[in-house]
Amino acid sequence: MERVRVKALLVDTSNNAPVVLLEGDKDHKVMPIWIGQNEALAISLKLQGKEFERPLTHDLLKSVLDKLSQKLERVVIDDLSNKTYYATLELKGPDDEVLKVDSRPSDSIALALRTDSPIFVDDEIFDDVAMESPFDEEEILDEEAGEEFEDFLDQQMELRKFKEFTDDN
Amino acid sequence: MERVRVKALLVDTSNNAPVVLLEGDKDHKVMPIWIGQNEALAISLKLQGKEFERPLTHDLLKSVLDKLSQKLERVVIDDLSNKTYYATLELKGPDDEVLKVDSRPSDSIALALRTDSPIFVDDEIFDDVAMESPFDEEEILDEEAGEEFEDFLDQQMELRKFKEFTDDN
Repeated sequence: MERVRVKALLVDTSNNAPVVLLEGDKDHKVMPIWIGQNEALAISLKLQGKEFERPLTHDLLKSVLDKLSQKLERVVIDDLSNKTYYATLELKGPDDEVLKVDSRPSDSIALALRTDSPIFVDDEIFDDVAMESPFDEEEILDEEAGEEFEDFLDQQMELRKFKEFTDDN
Repeated sequence: MERVRVKALLVDTSNNAPVVLLEGDKDHKVMPIWIGQNEALAISLKLQGKEFERPLTHDLLKSVLDKLSQKLERVVIDDLSNKTYYATLELKGPDDEVLKVDSRPSDSIALALRTDSPIFVDDEIFDDVAMESPFDEEEILDEEAGEEFEDFLDQQMELRKFKEFTDDN
């Protein structure tokens, strides 16, 4: 298993889709996963330490786990099939039994960031898809990518500010 | 407590925000709640019996409850403050203990539809905000409202079809 961390959130300019970049702990290669906009927002809000007044859906998921004394032990991205990544939540309760729940990687990551849980990727998958990080060579790339995502986030936040009360419901 | 059911999903044309209409069981008055786009999509997919390949966030929440042998006994929309509605999930586990979890009404409704759980609204709130249903007088209104939401849903689905694999992640 390769332990990974969220290195960056970018926007694929070809289709305006968010991409989460996971960086391996061992050799600092990165693995991109294209995800949905709402899950990207849930991830980025947490990365930036921003919070809405009311719990978003992933915050609710965390509340439910807390109430049930369940700890998210770890998230494992353990399969890749037909361009779709599969992940498993590993929950541990007071009786130390581990329960596994099938999940999209995006939901898993959004939740893991909220519970400070480690994220792992199956070695074979990581070795297959990981690439040299585009951020190592020129810092300017980092900034540009960052700005793109900042624009996306600004748009999303602006959209939500306009009808803020609808997201609070 | 007034038991309510999801009567319709509409779009507020003034700001393109989705609105869920809850209808009271007793006198068939309706109560509108403005909600976020993603939660509206989660509600409408379930109402229409459509499913994505992979679990969306509310499907994941249901999976987690199932794994932990928790039943969503009911959802109660129990507070309204500064235009924001508050809801509580009432969960019951194998030991019959009821746990309450604070939630947005939109998440509660999206989940209740997946677990076939009843939705209630505090009587005082319902009496305050409920109005005559716009659907009783002229059926044409219903159709128009329905079409608006259909357009919204089509847009959303089209958007997601275009980059379907990102939502699967």
